[in-house]
Amino acid sequence: MKGTVGELGEFGLIRELTSRLTSTPAVQLGPGDDAAVVAAPDRRVVATTDVLLEGRHFRRDWSTAYDVGRKAAAQNLADIAAMGAEPTAVLLALVVPAELPATWPVELMDGIRDECQVAGAAVVGGDVVRGETITVSITALGDLRNRPPVTRAGARPGNLVAVTGWLGWSAAGLAVLSRGFRSPRAFVEAHRRPEPPYHAGPAAADLGATAMTDISDGLVADLGHIAAASGVDIDLRSAAVDVPAQMTDIGQAVGVDPLHWVLTGGEDHAIAAVFPRDVKLPARWRIIGEAARPAGRTPRVTVDGAPWEKAGGWDHFGPGA
Amino acid sequence: MKGTVGELGEFGLIRELTSRLTSTPAVQLGPGDDAAVVAAPDRRVVATTDVLLEGRHFRRDWSTAYDVGRKAAAQNLADIAAMGAEPTAVLLALVVPAELPATWPVELMDGIRDECQVAGAAVVGGDVVRGETITVSITALGDLRNRPPVTRAGARPGNLVAVTGWLGWSAAGLAVLSRGFRSPRAFVEAHRRPEPPYHAGPAAADLGATAMTDISDGLVADLGHIAAASGVDIDLRSAAVDVPAQMTDIGQAVGVDPLHWVLTGGEDHAIAAVFPRDVKLPARWRIIGEAARPAGRTPRVTVDGAPWEKAGGWDHFGPGA
Repeated sequence: MKGTVGELGEFGLIRELTSRLTSTPAVQLGPGDDAAVVAAPDRRVVATTDVLLEGRHFRRDWSTAYDVGRKAAAQNLADIAAMGAEPTAVLLALVVPAELPATWPVELMDGIRDECQVAGAAVVGGDVVRGETITVSITALGDLRNRPPVTRAGARPGNLVAVTGWLGWSAAGLAVLSRGFRSPRAFVEAHRRPEPPYHAGPAAADLGATAMTDISDGLVADLGHIAAASGVDIDLRSAAVDVPAQMTDIGQAVGVDPLHWVLTGGEDHAIAAVFPRDVKLPARWRIIGEAARPAGRTPRVTVDGAPWEKAGGWDHFGPGA
Repeated sequence: MKGTVGELGEFGLIRELTSRLTSTPAVQLGPGDDAAVVAAPDRRVVATTDVLLEGRHFRRDWSTAYDVGRKAAAQNLADIAAMGAEPTAVLLALVVPAELPATWPVELMDGIRDECQVAGAAVVGGDVVRGETITVSITALGDLRNRPPVTRAGARPGNLVAVTGWLGWSAAGLAVLSRGFRSPRAFVEAHRRPEPPYHAGPAAADLGATAMTDISDGLVADLGHIAAASGVDIDLRSAAVDVPAQMTDIGQAVGVDPLHWVLTGGEDHAIAAVFPRDVKLPARWRIIGEAARPAGRTPRVTVDGAPWEKAGGWDHFGPGA
């Protein structure tokens, strides 16, 4: 495809984008009408939305449009899975500059479509407008299939805290990229294209998870949301947290404690869940800590019994953002 | 409230925004978790998304934040109604500059909340990030309550074309504002804050509408979508289209045929529907034309038998955009 999105025009671009989509049995009416119609067999729909901005959440020199699409879809689909639901549909609201090559939104859509396929969902609608900054807003929908939604608020003292998926890989990959390197490739790839363990969300719900979240702000910060919502303290055992040897190597090369990436790195969209003590967890889950009655007034997350100083949540408006 | 959104911080702003929301019985889990849970009693969910950008879709000197919120919600909720569904929920993805006064997003949210209340829906989730251009992406969800969705594709030759709601008021209001005036107030208000006839959408479905759309690009352009999707020609009778006397006055003052506003003005979010000939329409519907077998290869919309030259759709990337 040649030319810019301005040359292609709004309707030309929308035709190009929708022509690449695939469908699923849940899609009763796809893009092209006033609204889409998606099956919701559970009689409840789970819904979440997230925005990615160029320069803030991705860089075109570090990530292809395809990877941005994969990532933008993944972070929304992971939120659906982290409720215990199965993703069904995605809507895309896209802002693109007129001078952007038309291949960019087209490859973005390919990435969104492919990530949706991984999660069992399909793109059912969207909107495209011209603007200065590439802005990718995605809304994802999901179905609970008779499961109770697993919120952040159900953790109880004595419950076990477990994770599944990758932790700190995206942050280590970002550290590599920030220093001008393109390898180790596995970490750079993890930054460009997270692989959330979608199936683990509904599976955790079936295993009786009392609380659950995906890791988007960092393990300590996101467990902090569970601690606050549930009114429990959470203590993590650092020895139980997996730090791959290669991540340790990168840490030494760039002068960062790799545990920092594992505990505070977001964007891998691992899933953390809290379970009753008697749960029998499949091998892909790793028990990393425990919930307890709050020791102080404010529920908090500790690592080996002590506060993890560098752990603060990511504030998109804060001075460091 | 004092200060900027940057001073308030991401979490402070989210707290402020969510504290102002109201709920409905359909909201089973509102904002604050990984995702929301909304009732979908019909076992299908209707979903649509739209983006508004500052400078392109609204101006802060012409519209208050509250009005932008009402309008942004209205255009999405109208899309739900135009499928024959009842709006249930809205999600907001918001981009705001750090230096923006914090009152702006707060008043925006008040507007979104109030428009949702008019339509019977509630805000259930969102995302807020910092960026250069104010960007308001809204996704609306709705429930069909056992009605078949009314698409753009079901119009048949001989069907009658009817409208309900306001037509051309927003365009006339914009013409007034563009020339530096603030009155007549009713038209300026119509531009700032559309009043879609939400209830008319499900009612039209119950009356047996064969095709339906909300008017967002202009009457002729949006009926063109129905003509194309249904494979019919549509002829409108200009004498049947209501041109209020005050709109004629504005047209004379600014040198525009007011019929142009009525036929091509979007943003009022009136609802156009196509019905079998034997339909008994309530008084608020006005029959303005008729569908016919296509005379040529391409289905088209005519006015009094002739093409309406100025009627082209609004292309957000086109040279005139």
